[in-house]
Amino acid sequence: MVFKKITLIGTSTESFDKAVDDAVGRAEETLQNVKWVEVEEMGVEIASVENREYQAEVEVAFELED
Amino acid sequence: MVFKKITLIGTSTESFDKAVDDAVGRAEETLQNVKWVEVEEMGVEIASVENREYQAEVEVAFELED
Amino acid sequence: MVFKKITLIGTSTESFDKAVDDAVGRAEETLQNVKWVEVEEMGVEIASVENREYQAEVEVAFELED
Amino acid sequence: MVFKKITLIGTSTESFDKAVDDAVGRAEETLQNVKWVEVEEMGVEIASVENREYQAEVEVAFELED
Amino acid sequence: MVFKKITLIGTSTESFDKAVDDAVGRAEETLQNVKWVEVEEMGVEIASVENREYQAEVEVAFELED
Amino acid sequence: MVFKKITLIGTSTESFDKAVDDAVGRAEETLQNVKWVEVEEMGVEIASVENREYQAEVEVAFELED
Amino acid sequence: MVFKKITLIGTSTESFDKAVDDAVGRAEETLQNVKWVEVEEMGVEIASVENREYQAEVEVAFELED
Amino acid sequence: MVFKKITLIGTSTESFDKAVDDAVGRAEETLQNVKWVEVEEMGVEIASVENREYQAEVEVAFELED
Amino acid sequence: MVFKKITLIGTSTESFDKAVDDAVGRAEETLQNVKWVEVEEMGVEIASVENREYQAEVEVAFELED
Amino acid sequence: MVFKKITLIGTSTESFDKAVDDAVGRAEETLQNVKWVEVEEMGVEIASVENREYQAEVEVAFELED
Amino acid sequence: MVFKKITLIGTSTESFDKAVDDAVGRAEETLQNVKWVEVEEMGVEIASVENREYQAEVEVAFELED
Amino acid sequence: MVFKKITLIGTSTESFDKAVDDAVGRAEETLQNVKWVEVEEMGVEIASVENREYQAEVEVAFELED
Repeated sequence: MVFKKITLIGTSTESFDKAVDDAVGRAEETLQNVKWVEVEEMGVEIASVENREYQAEVEVAFELED
Repeated sequence: MVFKKITLIGTSTESFDKAVDDAVGRAEETLQNVKWVEVEEMGVEIASVENREYQAEVEVAFELED
Repeated sequence: MVFKKITLIGTSTESFDKAVDDAVGRAEETLQNVKWVEVEEMGVEIASVENREYQAEVEVAFELED
Repeated sequence: MVFKKITLIGTSTESFDKAVDDAVGRAEETLQNVKWVEVEEMGVEIASVENREYQAEVEVAFELED
Repeated sequence: MVFKKITLIGTSTESFDKAVDDAVGRAEETLQNVKWVEVEEMGVEIASVENREYQAEVEVAFELED
Repeated sequence: MVFKKITLIGTSTESFDKAVDDAVGRAEETLQNVKWVEVEEMGVEIASVENREYQAEVEVAFELED
Repeated sequence: MVFKKITLIGTSTESFDKAVDDAVGRAEETLQNVKWVEVEEMGVEIASVENREYQAEVEVAFELED
Repeated sequence: MVFKKITLIGTSTESFDKAVDDAVGRAEETLQNVKWVEVEEMGVEIASVENREYQAEVEVAFELED
Repeated sequence: MVFKKITLIGTSTESFDKAVDDAVGRAEETLQNVKWVEVEEMGVEIASVENREYQAEVEVAFELED
Repeated sequence: MVFKKITLIGTSTESFDKAVDDAVGRAEETLQNVKWVEVEEMGVEIASVENREYQAEVEVAFELED
Repeated sequence: MVFKKITLIGTSTESFDKAVDDAVGRAEETLQNVKWVEVEEMGVEIASVENREYQAEVEVAFELED
Repeated sequence: MVFKKITLIGTSTESFDKAVDDAVGRAEETLQNVKWVEVEEMGVEIASVENREYQAEVEVAFELED
C-alpha cells in the first residue's frame, strides 16, 4: 500500500473552513481514495480580488491503486 | 507558579473552530485553571469517517496547584 | 516596488476567521495598499477573559509608496 | 472524540525499529485505544551504556474515553 | 536538466527500511530516472490495521526528460 | 528502558535560569528519575504581573519504572 | 479557484538566478496559468559534473482549470 | 482588541537576562501597553566590541489603542 | 544599544541580488544606522506582472538612537 | 567540560541502522570520548550507485580534552 | 574573507550565561579571530552529574586566515 | 564511505553567487573530494564594511578517505 500526497490551495470569499473544503472537493473530483488532508498554510489575498479571499494550502493524501 | 502543557486533538464534523472548542471543552472537564491554548496542526480525516472530520491538534496550558 | 510586512494579532470572541478579519480591518484603517496577509499562529486565550477569545497572529504585507 | 498525545523515548541495543517498538509496547501496556505513533527524533547513546543504545522519541496518540 | 520531486508514503508490516523501499519500488515502477529519495516523516499506524504498520513519507526526485 | 517527556513552564521574577530551576524543582517534587531538561521557549510576561516575570518552557525527561 | 503546487529543481552552470529560471521555464512549457514560484533550497553540485552546477529547488504554483 | 509585535535586539556586557531587559526597557520608553515578550535568538558579539556583548533578539507585543 | 528589525520585500525584474538591493536601498533612504540584512524568503511573481519579477523578503536591522 | 559536535553522513547498502553505525564507527576511529549521536536526515541515493545506498546524516558529540 | 563555524556545547553548574562563556572561552583558547557566537540549544543535565549542569550548544564563527 | 560536512561563510562585494563561490573555492583549497554544497543562510553586512558585503553560509560535504 502506497499513498501519494499533492499540494493544493483552495480559496473562498467566506472562511478558511470553506477554503479547505474547496481544495478537498477539487481533489475528490479527480482522485480516488482520498484519505486525509493536512493544512500547511493559511492566508488572505486582498489586492487582486474584489473582497477578501481566504486561502488554505493543504496536502491531500490518497492511496495509489496497485 | 508552574504551568503544564498537554497535547489534545479535538474533532468536529462542522469546522476547525469547533474542533478546537472540542479539545478545550474536554480539557476544562478534567483540568482546573486552564489558561490558554495554542493551535499546532489542523487537518481533515476523510477515509475512516462518514463525512469530513475536521481535526485540530492543540497544546493546552494550565497552572499546577502548589 | 518595495513591500513592508508588519505583525498584528487580531482577536474575536466568535471564531478564528473573525480574529483574522479583526487584524486585517485594523491594518486597512491605518495603512494604504494592503496586499495580502499570512496567518502565523492561532490560539485561544481563556484565563484573562470572560469567555474564550480566539487570537490570530498575522503578517500584513502592504506596498510602500515611492 | 478527543485524542491525547504523549511523548515517549524507547530504547534498544539492536535497531531504531526496535526502539520505536519499545515505546509503542510500553504505551499499549498502560493506555487503551492507542491509534498511531509519530517519530520525532532518533539518536544513539554511546557514553553511558555498554554498547550502542538506539533511541527513538515518539509521540503516541490515543483516544480519550468519554 | 530539471528534476521533479513527488511525495509518497510507503508502508510495511516489518520495518521502516522496508516502508522506504516500498515507496522507492513504487516510484521506480512508474517513473524513469529516479535519482534520490529524502525521508520526511516516519510513523506507525496501529488502530486501523491488524498489527503495526510502519510508514515512511519520502520525497522522490527524478530527472525530467527534455 | 523507556523515558517520558512532559512540558512545564517555570516562572521567576529574577532570571531565566531561575525560571528553568522553578520547572525542574517542580518536576523533581512529583517525578522520580528525572534525567534531563530541554529549554523550548523563553519569554517575559509584563501585563498581568506586578513586575517582569521571566518564563521558560521546558521539556522534562524522566525514566519510567518497569 | 484552486491552485496546485509542484516541486522542481532547476540547474545552471552560471548562477542561482538561472537555475530558478530553468525550473520556471520548464514549468511554463508544460503548465498553463503559472502564477508564482517559491525558492525552497539552493545548492551546488560539484562531484558529478564537470564544473559547478547551481541548483534551485522551487515550488511552482499554477491555477487549475475548472 | 488588536496587538502589534515588533522585533528588537537588546545588548548587555553582563548577561542574557540583561540583554532582554535592555530591549524590554527600550520598548517601554516608547510604547504604551507592552504586554509580553518572546525571546527569538540569543548570541554573543565578540569581534567588534571590547569584551563580550550578550545579545537577545525579542518580539515585543503591545496593545494598539482604538 | 538596542537594534530594531523590520521586514521588507524588494523586487527586481533582473535578479535576486537586485531584489535584495532594492529592499536595502529603500531601508537606507528612510532609516539611519542600517547594520545588516538577513534574507528570509525568495520567490518569483509571474501572473500579475509583465515578465518575471524576482522578490526577496529581508529583515533589515538598524540601531535605535538613544 | 566542553563538547564538540561534527556532522557525518554514513552509508550502507543494507539499512538506515547500518548507515548510522557506519558514521558512528568512523567517528570512533578518529575521536576519543564519543558521547552520543543525533540523526539529522535520512535518504537513499539511487542514481550514482549500483543498488540503493541508504544514507544517514548524523551529528556526533564528543568531549574535548582539557 | 571566509568564516568557518563550529558547534560546541559549554557546561556550567551555575547558569546558562556561564555555560555559553565556557564554550566561548574554549573556542578562544584554540582559535584565532573568533567573531561571534549563536546559541542553538539550552538544556540541563540532571541524571549523570552531582547537581544540575547547565548546557548551552553554540555555533562559534571565526575568520579563516588566508 | 563516509562524508563529513563543515559550515563556511563566503563573502563577496558583488553578489550572492560569488559569496557561495568564495566558500566553495576556499573549501577546495584545503579539502579533497568536495562533493556538494547546501546554502543555509544569506545576508548582507552593511555597517562594518565600506560597501555592501554579500554573505552566504553554506554546508560543504566531502568524502573522508579510508
